Amino acid sequence: MTTFVAYQGEPGAYSEIAAGRVGTPIPQRSFTDVFEAVAHGQAALGAVPLENSLGGTIHENYDLLLKYPVRIVAETYVTIEHCLLGLPGATIAAATQALSHPQALAQCDRFFAEHPHLEAVVAYDTAGSAKMVRAAGQPNRLAIASERAATHYELEILARNIASHAVNITRFAIIEKSLGSPENQISDSSVLSLQSSVLRKVTVVFRLRHETGSLYQTLRIFAEAGINLTKIESRPFREQAFEYVFYADFIEPENRELCAQTLAELKETVPFLHVLGSYGRIEN
Amino acid sequence: MTTFVAYQGEPGAYSEIAAGRVGTPIPQRSFTDVFEAVAHGQAALGAVPLENSLGGTIHENYDLLLKYPVRIVAETYVTIEHCLLGLPGATIAAATQALSHPQALAQCDRFFAEHPHLEAVVAYDTAGSAKMVRAAGQPNRLAIASERAATHYELEILARNIASHAVNITRFAIIEKSLGSPENQISDSSVLSLQSSVLRKVTVVFRLRHETGSLYQTLRIFAEAGINLTKIESRPFREQAFEYVFYADFIEPENRELCAQTLAELKETVPFLHVLGSYGRIEN
Repeated sequence: MTTFVAYQGEPGAYSEIAAGRVGTPIPQRSFTDVFEAVAHGQAALGAVPLENSLGGTIHENYDLLLKYPVRIVAETYVTIEHCLLGLPGATIAAATQALSHPQALAQCDRFFAEHPHLEAVVAYDTAGSAKMVRAAGQPNRLAIASERAATHYELEILARNIASHAVNITRFAIIEKSLGSPENQISDSSVLSLQSSVLRKVTVVFRLRHETGSLYQTLRIFAEAGINLTKIESRPFREQAFEYVFYADFIEPENRELCAQTLAELKETVPFLHVLGSYGRIEN
Repeated sequence: MTTFVAYQGEPGAYSEIAAGRVGTPIPQRSFTDVFEAVAHGQAALGAVPLENSLGGTIHENYDLLLKYPVRIVAETYVTIEHCLLGLPGATIAAATQALSHPQALAQCDRFFAEHPHLEAVVAYDTAGSAKMVRAAGQPNRLAIASERAATHYELEILARNIASHAVNITRFAIIEKSLGSPENQISDSSVLSLQSSVLRKVTVVFRLRHETGSLYQTLRIFAEAGINLTKIESRPFREQAFEYVFYADFIEPENRELCAQTLAELKETVPFLHVLGSYGRIEN
């Protein structure tokens, strides 16, 4: 049976790479549409970016993870490698324009400085720029997009890794429909058969009152259980002043009883706790 | 004497609003150019976004804060209010296109769903879209940008607050050239005469070895001093595996001796500490 994986963007988008690692990608217009598709069963899984090494955490998707009845069942990392693509026969020397998403254009600013004859032209997204170059059929127009976009739109790769920053990685969550009670979030996917991952993580979202030492008291629970945090991030909670939302990831202890105890203790300490999932990592 | 404030973007950009609160804004092509202008004295101050309530922390600017000899001397918050702008006489009903940055277009997805006759067209940035509408001179083309962009490009505001999310705030740091030694970062600006701000903050960046409880031990220093953290965020440190970079903001104690003691204790605990500044808040 085909496992459909909803993602936001056009075919050839970096999100499609993440989705393609766990099933058959199906494109959606927005992040909300990805969550809708998973919540209502049009797709068994979804792939949504959680954070990027240059741009930071995508709060919008954490908000949607709290809003929709879904859970994280895997994480996967996609290296963003901007390639310069053109129609067969196109060359950098003969080209006049390079199209892409403004963020991708900005990330390639050094390349544009070194090639002043190329005009940077904005497009809706990276894969969309490849689609436009294919549709326009003019070899003087190039696109900045993924290698996958080159394959998808039958374009040639004129240059690889043209971004100014060497490292640009996006972390994606693979989501599926939630099983109901929060306790059930700590269980394996019913869709994905993940090979035993060395590093399993748990992601939690909790609120804290803005009192001196309240975060410290919360982290004591993890420290005393010998549990290692891999991510922590505070965010002002907009609906209630003086409360903060925290996102935290921790390494899931092999002893699941210890994990359950720690989460139970955490739940008693904080005014709000939501366990978003327990999951392994999918390699590319 | 005029205080020049470097910012990234076009006149009318949201960054220009932040810059305009402390002096005369001067536009720059990139964030790097803002830091270059401040470090080399072409501008006394700079205004750079640190985080957005939907999009998260802009890691690129934290990287630049560590790279350049600058310090934070103030923070200021800009509410992102997307307005629909048109030439005098333009109407939504008669328009066919609305131009803006892809992120702004995406943030107004509900508006586009309600006005299906309007085509969303990408532009390099929000203020740039207003500039293009003014230059094109066609009343069927609208722009999504700030109220300030309307004033700057002499456009009319056809609708206000058209974004789907009610709350969209960007936090900016006002930076100036560093005074040299890290201890001097905890001193008032030599350019800005800030009115005594109720809430003064200190921003620090530190690294931690990825050992269980190391963050907990570090937060103990703040908790025991009775110092309240307002932001904490981890980020994998890409140059060295198993080390994490943390960004933290805390309320500066009125007792500056206590602050200095706490920072000294922190410095002895972590492998790397950089104090980015001590500053008050500038209201709009």
